[in-house]
Amino acid sequence: METSTPVIRSLSDLLIGEEADVFVLMTAKEALTTKQGKPYYKVGFRDAGREVLFPIWCDSEFFTNCQDDWQPGGFYKIRGVYQESSYGPQLEIHRIREVTAADTSEGFDPSLCIPTTRFDPEEMMRDFLDILQGNIANEPLRSLCLQILEDNRETFMICPAARSNHHAFRSGLLEHVLSVTKTCLYLAEKYDAYYENLNPPLDRDIVIAGAALHDIGKLREYELGIEGVEYSPAGNLIGHILLGRDMVRESPCAAAVDPEHLLRLEHVIVAHQRLPEWGSPKPPMTPEALLVHYADDLDAKYAMMASALAEASGEDPMTSHRNPLRQRVYRGNKPR
Amino acid sequence: METSTPVIRSLSDLLIGEEADVFVLMTAKEALTTKQGKPYYKVGFRDAGREVLFPIWCDSEFFTNCQDDWQPGGFYKIRGVYQESSYGPQLEIHRIREVTAADTSEGFDPSLCIPTTRFDPEEMMRDFLDILQGNIANEPLRSLCLQILEDNRETFMICPAARSNHHAFRSGLLEHVLSVTKTCLYLAEKYDAYYENLNPPLDRDIVIAGAALHDIGKLREYELGIEGVEYSPAGNLIGHILLGRDMVRESPCAAAVDPEHLLRLEHVIVAHQRLPEWGSPKPPMTPEALLVHYADDLDAKYAMMASALAEASGEDPMTSHRNPLRQRVYRGNKPR
Amino acid sequence: METSTPVIRSLSDLLIGEEADVFVLMTAKEALTTKQGKPYYKVGFRDAGREVLFPIWCDSEFFTNCQDDWQPGGFYKIRGVYQESSYGPQLEIHRIREVTAADTSEGFDPSLCIPTTRFDPEEMMRDFLDILQGNIANEPLRSLCLQILEDNRETFMICPAARSNHHAFRSGLLEHVLSVTKTCLYLAEKYDAYYENLNPPLDRDIVIAGAALHDIGKLREYELGIEGVEYSPAGNLIGHILLGRDMVRESPCAAAVDPEHLLRLEHVIVAHQRLPEWGSPKPPMTPEALLVHYADDLDAKYAMMASALAEASGEDPMTSHRNPLRQRVYRGNKPR
Amino acid sequence: METSTPVIRSLSDLLIGEEADVFVLMTAKEALTTKQGKPYYKVGFRDAGREVLFPIWCDSEFFTNCQDDWQPGGFYKIRGVYQESSYGPQLEIHRIREVTAADTSEGFDPSLCIPTTRFDPEEMMRDFLDILQGNIANEPLRSLCLQILEDNRETFMICPAARSNHHAFRSGLLEHVLSVTKTCLYLAEKYDAYYENLNPPLDRDIVIAGAALHDIGKLREYELGIEGVEYSPAGNLIGHILLGRDMVRESPCAAAVDPEHLLRLEHVIVAHQRLPEWGSPKPPMTPEALLVHYADDLDAKYAMMASALAEASGEDPMTSHRNPLRQRVYRGNKPR
Amino acid sequence: METSTPVIRSLSDLLIGEEADVFVLMTAKEALTTKQGKPYYKVGFRDAGREVLFPIWCDSEFFTNCQDDWQPGGFYKIRGVYQESSYGPQLEIHRIREVTAADTSEGFDPSLCIPTTRFDPEEMMRDFLDILQGNIANEPLRSLCLQILEDNRETFMICPAARSNHHAFRSGLLEHVLSVTKTCLYLAEKYDAYYENLNPPLDRDIVIAGAALHDIGKLREYELGIEGVEYSPAGNLIGHILLGRDMVRESPCAAAVDPEHLLRLEHVIVAHQRLPEWGSPKPPMTPEALLVHYADDLDAKYAMMASALAEASGEDPMTSHRNPLRQRVYRGNKPR
Amino acid sequence: METSTPVIRSLSDLLIGEEADVFVLMTAKEALTTKQGKPYYKVGFRDAGREVLFPIWCDSEFFTNCQDDWQPGGFYKIRGVYQESSYGPQLEIHRIREVTAADTSEGFDPSLCIPTTRFDPEEMMRDFLDILQGNIANEPLRSLCLQILEDNRETFMICPAARSNHHAFRSGLLEHVLSVTKTCLYLAEKYDAYYENLNPPLDRDIVIAGAALHDIGKLREYELGIEGVEYSPAGNLIGHILLGRDMVRESPCAAAVDPEHLLRLEHVIVAHQRLPEWGSPKPPMTPEALLVHYADDLDAKYAMMASALAEASGEDPMTSHRNPLRQRVYRGNKPR
Repeated sequence: METSTPVIRSLSDLLIGEEADVFVLMTAKEALTTKQGKPYYKVGFRDAGREVLFPIWCDSEFFTNCQDDWQPGGFYKIRGVYQESSYGPQLEIHRIREVTAADTSEGFDPSLCIPTTRFDPEEMMRDFLDILQGNIANEPLRSLCLQILEDNRETFMICPAARSNHHAFRSGLLEHVLSVTKTCLYLAEKYDAYYENLNPPLDRDIVIAGAALHDIGKLREYELGIEGVEYSPAGNLIGHILLGRDMVRESPCAAAVDPEHLLRLEHVIVAHQRLPEWGSPKPPMTPEALLVHYADDLDAKYAMMASALAEASGEDPMTSHRNPLRQRVYRGNKPR
Repeated sequence: METSTPVIRSLSDLLIGEEADVFVLMTAKEALTTKQGKPYYKVGFRDAGREVLFPIWCDSEFFTNCQDDWQPGGFYKIRGVYQESSYGPQLEIHRIREVTAADTSEGFDPSLCIPTTRFDPEEMMRDFLDILQGNIANEPLRSLCLQILEDNRETFMICPAARSNHHAFRSGLLEHVLSVTKTCLYLAEKYDAYYENLNPPLDRDIVIAGAALHDIGKLREYELGIEGVEYSPAGNLIGHILLGRDMVRESPCAAAVDPEHLLRLEHVIVAHQRLPEWGSPKPPMTPEALLVHYADDLDAKYAMMASALAEASGEDPMTSHRNPLRQRVYRGNKPR
Repeated sequence: METSTPVIRSLSDLLIGEEADVFVLMTAKEALTTKQGKPYYKVGFRDAGREVLFPIWCDSEFFTNCQDDWQPGGFYKIRGVYQESSYGPQLEIHRIREVTAADTSEGFDPSLCIPTTRFDPEEMMRDFLDILQGNIANEPLRSLCLQILEDNRETFMICPAARSNHHAFRSGLLEHVLSVTKTCLYLAEKYDAYYENLNPPLDRDIVIAGAALHDIGKLREYELGIEGVEYSPAGNLIGHILLGRDMVRESPCAAAVDPEHLLRLEHVIVAHQRLPEWGSPKPPMTPEALLVHYADDLDAKYAMMASALAEASGEDPMTSHRNPLRQRVYRGNKPR
Repeated sequence: METSTPVIRSLSDLLIGEEADVFVLMTAKEALTTKQGKPYYKVGFRDAGREVLFPIWCDSEFFTNCQDDWQPGGFYKIRGVYQESSYGPQLEIHRIREVTAADTSEGFDPSLCIPTTRFDPEEMMRDFLDILQGNIANEPLRSLCLQILEDNRETFMICPAARSNHHAFRSGLLEHVLSVTKTCLYLAEKYDAYYENLNPPLDRDIVIAGAALHDIGKLREYELGIEGVEYSPAGNLIGHILLGRDMVRESPCAAAVDPEHLLRLEHVIVAHQRLPEWGSPKPPMTPEALLVHYADDLDAKYAMMASALAEASGEDPMTSHRNPLRQRVYRGNKPR
Repeated sequence: METSTPVIRSLSDLLIGEEADVFVLMTAKEALTTKQGKPYYKVGFRDAGREVLFPIWCDSEFFTNCQDDWQPGGFYKIRGVYQESSYGPQLEIHRIREVTAADTSEGFDPSLCIPTTRFDPEEMMRDFLDILQGNIANEPLRSLCLQILEDNRETFMICPAARSNHHAFRSGLLEHVLSVTKTCLYLAEKYDAYYENLNPPLDRDIVIAGAALHDIGKLREYELGIEGVEYSPAGNLIGHILLGRDMVRESPCAAAVDPEHLLRLEHVIVAHQRLPEWGSPKPPMTPEALLVHYADDLDAKYAMMASALAEASGEDPMTSHRNPLRQRVYRGNKPR
Repeated sequence: METSTPVIRSLSDLLIGEEADVFVLMTAKEALTTKQGKPYYKVGFRDAGREVLFPIWCDSEFFTNCQDDWQPGGFYKIRGVYQESSYGPQLEIHRIREVTAADTSEGFDPSLCIPTTRFDPEEMMRDFLDILQGNIANEPLRSLCLQILEDNRETFMICPAARSNHHAFRSGLLEHVLSVTKTCLYLAEKYDAYYENLNPPLDRDIVIAGAALHDIGKLREYELGIEGVEYSPAGNLIGHILLGRDMVRESPCAAAVDPEHLLRLEHVIVAHQRLPEWGSPKPPMTPEALLVHYADDLDAKYAMMASALAEASGEDPMTSHRNPLRQRVYRGNKPR
């Protein structure tokens, strides 16, 4: 059946029935038994764009191998045939071994096995820091933002924005926060000019700093694993809104910030979800908090809608309602 | 008491205790009796920035005059002294007569007596039409928008955006719709670039056309009077969302629009309030409807917050919660 | 096993274990694989009163036949044995072929294969039109109703009232609307007499016309297939309430109707679901709309309760709560 | 001012400024002081169709008389002039004395001083009992209903249906219950015929008995006074739904009723308000309870709408939203 | 395979793979067919602490035996091997027979096969009656409580407090009611002393009597079977709150109780769930009802939390949210 | 009128019409004008148990004095006559002067002029500290609690528990927190014994420490004035739940506390209001948080009910629903 050496392909590019070698991350291994008593392992492997889940039956040649050696979180080179069944995408394994150092030369790159932002994190980070540098006039506030980001740079660069709702992929938090900050730049400028006699005037520094830090508590709410995120105990018992405000208050740079500025910044974080049932103990009570809330909420909802559209298939003009929006999305009368 | 001829001032500029001549619109005249049985008229006069409400007692020299001649909706020249009591701003009338043609030369202008947009309606309209001309690429859709605006230009130029919630002043609808459209221009461009593989792609024409027409039904929901607006029977029984969609469907230009475009545009109008309890029978189910909803909702809420701040006085760090947001707004630790 | 020629029976009359020839509609054909990797087709066939769903295994004699030839929407003559398993009613196929023209003489009738009203649609339609003829005194209003029904007679005769909630079968809409209209006849007469000084008086014409047209938009909300209905794009994005009002406004007969009458009729349609979360942007604000809402709501809820009772089995005094009412219904202490 | 002897008129027929003798019930007498320290009594008098409320000042000739002698609940003959001020209808008293036995010959009748049903209570009661006699086939059930009504005939004949919501007048309960029972007669017959195979079949006896007794607990919920009703302690702490079920269970006739019948009847009473927040601990779980709920709810809401229309004045096309429906009602484009 | 005679063990103590003889109650027997058409019975057996559910395949040696003889509700002695599969705890049967009288000598006790309170029912009952004897000073009230408990002693001793929410095991109602009564003893004493001038004073007798009887209606709401409880028709259609109040009112001792006391006691029962959507038609309107509500609610919620913690396994710091609280519970950072 | 020297009395003891000398705190002074244009000051004076509010007319002998000298927050000795009008308790002033040092000898004590706890704050504080000393076994946790209380002793001794809802008087917070802590002592002991195998075991130290600190953030939420409290900016924008958690985290003693303990303690504070709409971003997810929530909620609701009963007058069996519970409370059939 394997007459010629299959080429190295990415799992997410395989066509149905195609055989190839792929580099993948093992994501699941669960010992199960059928209703009829037959033991098997349900295993999962993925690259950045596709996950396959399938059984290794007790009578398979790979069963012992699976039982003893394979570990979720490990990287593997698999030769196999891609299939799609009613249980979703599957892989018929022909050969499998752990990835070795040498595989790098053949194109193995762990980051290609994990769902991640479409954008370059380094570039996003530069872009983000430039915006803060250039648009927060108040020095102590600017320092506060930059210092917090500096202190958490490593995790901030890779953290998802959510476990499943939106931007739930590597560097998703950075992507989301950058997008929100850019929208806030526009809105702060627009509404400052529109209501030029607002009293007190719109504090554009607070808007930008608030946008930059509104979700910073997610770094404490989550525990990062290879595969997505889990909630930390503090994430469960306290929540990212309070944890994010802590990070601001605990920063050594906070002392230099004018107390009124600090209070307004904290309020942006506290109020950014707007509704108590979404986790905000207070609604936006300042124009700054209002702008950040809207920019954030729209960015999240738009991402959910885009995902719902991307995941839909078939010819139904509507997506299913099984998505974080909990409603159908219109795909057009004759979706392709 | 009136030794020198008072100067002509605008009512909203008068200081407490200052005597002046003012041109005002009569806004209220109600025959009442005190608990103790004393008859009086409660009358109201206003210019663009201030309204005074006060009694004309049955023993006042102006009582008969008020009873027989004064009419709400009429314009008057009043000489009087401005006062503020616990019942709000008042005017102690010394002389009063109806405005005459000659008063124009002294600066009388009816539009100065009505609360109105801070901006020039003609300029906003030009700005608005330019945006539509320049940013709706699809010809039939562009014609539809421009034709509807053309057909309703006169009322659209002056209609408020609401009876009391936000932009509740002359040309408030135009001011609000222009602002929403501008935000939508930014958001459509941003999110189109951000999600470049959206399928189907974001239709920026629909976003702009939807922003332009989302509130057009208010022209049928309201009946315009000198003083603000009242709901029409159709406004009460059907509502501006359905009435606005009617205006689109009934336009002779609608036939030329691709049915799929028309459906998406109608959906933007139908869904722009998002929640059923706010009048939208359907939530936003397209990216276009989502963008217009957020731009619209933010613009309304920001205006409410700005009004709450503008109307607050005293030294309380918070405004009252008696405003369309039904919550307090933060004025700063030591408001001026 | 097939010693004698089985008689022709209707599927819904078969007893467990009985063999017979049945004429059925194919309702489903889905290519699946068991968890253990065995391919099969899950197929469905139905007549008016019963649906069978069962697997055609890859090792069945019918597998290739099923794969290549059978089509959902096609009519088949099947010889088989009826069974009931824990997966529901099943059919063990012995022979199967497509229905031919000649089968008509043996009693094949496509309409016998589809769940449908218990009543004669033609008779209901006559009854319905007679009621409208005899009870809408106002000529333009009567013409409007009759013309809309005339223009949509064909689909109105067969359309279900819902996809799954109530009257979800062929001609269910007609059955429901006729029932609502009859109740409204009673209620309009009763309350007109009861509150004889109502000001303005109850307009019985509006009540009857509103009852007749309250759900007319379902003709645009649904796309009719052989098997039940799907939502059209406009059904999803706009909804039957608005679409029904469109049908009234777009009728050539609408111009002749007094505008006040038309507005009241439109309001009945707009308000008939009463609550915004049920799709009505306005609550009933006229006595006419109130009557139609109650007659409609009761008829739907009664049908749901009757269905819940009809579908229950076993000896539990209560039905399950898995029905459109989302609550249990009482079957009596010792249900048979 | 009183040159000729005024005629005896009914208070509700007086025109503004008209002087007459009227027989009225005193409804209120409250000792108050103006903000400026002037003592007065606020007194109220009414007949069946109109109530007047006005001050008796400390310097009035009637002050001492009012202080010492007048008692709410007493009947008075007043000679006075009818007025309408911004505080509502008033009466300028010229003479006043308590009603005497002799006044009956001049037309005094206490029942003319109390708001009451438009219908003849005796006739309604006969009508009601005839319906129960003729339409409850089950003898024990029929006896139960008739006996309970017999035992409470006196209060049932005069009790209002509510303190303020609907049918809040003398004999309002009887009027409402009779109307509900009549609607239930129609609905029970209709739906029994419509769903002839319902299992168990609709029990029309339960529908009629349930309609007749659904509100019977109001006799224990209220304490009847001359002027409307107050809640009894049990009415406040337990509520009419539970109290009504008690009356059924406590009746000596209950023992003869089949337990299943009794349970279904109790359930109609318990569930008739449908929602827990309206006082029903259980929703309708039988077809009988469903019918009674709808007939009852419609009758209450229709009465509220009729009252809102009757109380509206002026030319506004809509009533105020200050009515038990808490929404505006449409009066027509040009209400008279 | 069975070389040595296995010892008699309790099912809940078996380790995975351990063989033993166990006495168990049969809890389920359901005839099913696999998707592939293979018939089997799904059977369940349990003792007080563990339930096993597993298939008896049609080709098993026990199939006919199961089909013909085994009955849910029967007690069996089984020799088998305990296993845990992904379908939960299972038992591999080697031998099985019905329990006989002789088994008692080997330790068979039916009560060991049913989940039950950790406490001694007799002792709890004595404790409970002592509390009522010693803490209800008012004689008629005390007699009422004691008589009702006396009359229902047998079922009260064994009834669960719920079908599944909390204290859903044999004698759970007694355990819960005793706990609530003890808390009420503390709270009544505390708050009586704390607010010593309350007017009217806190009636500690009512608090204790109310605590004792608040859930008494569960005796009528449920029908007790070997395995837990089912709702009775009256339980479904009327509910335990009303049924419990009936038991008080119908007691021959009720007549001797002061009506005001009786009303307050009834109110405690009626209001003890506080919210209408939880079944209480009235909220607590007396201090006595308030105390009982809080003591009851806390005891129920604490039990739910304790169960959620007890049922959790693995190393996740949080339990699942699938428990009657519908939320996660914190198990500690490194749960054992 | 003043023949004999009136005795010194407390304002709250005065009978209607009684003349006396009283020491009072001025609580209000507002410049107003009647509808008829007459200027006056509305002034307020109070002692611990009663507040009087009345006008000083422009023609009063005290008008100038009031205008120029009297200051809210000042203490005054007034000779006057106590009156009750329909505007509430009033004082007819005969003489008035500011309190002097010498008045102390006559019994003047500022604390007698402010509504305050019925208990001795010093004693409550000792009691409170003793409980914490004796019942928090974990040393670092105990030190944390004691240190925070030590650091805030002065304000904690006097702060009210709320602006108006419950315990809204001097030292009300201490009174409330002490009561909650005592209840928690009982509940922690009870439930620890009741569920002795809870895993992890109930941490009684956390329960007591959580009870002690649950409302500590009110010290930052409020700004204390002579008269009650106002919200601070941080109180408005952040809220006492978050501010209280800050106080724990910022304490120098926090570092010594085991992180798991600290997290559980913070969670008790964060979750103590249970519902997001009451300000808790997380519901109780630990048994400790559950106990504190119930003890706190009951103590607040009981206080509200006690206040509603105390403030009611007249013979109505129910209080008004205008109290923080927003419902009526039962006073008994014949309240005194």
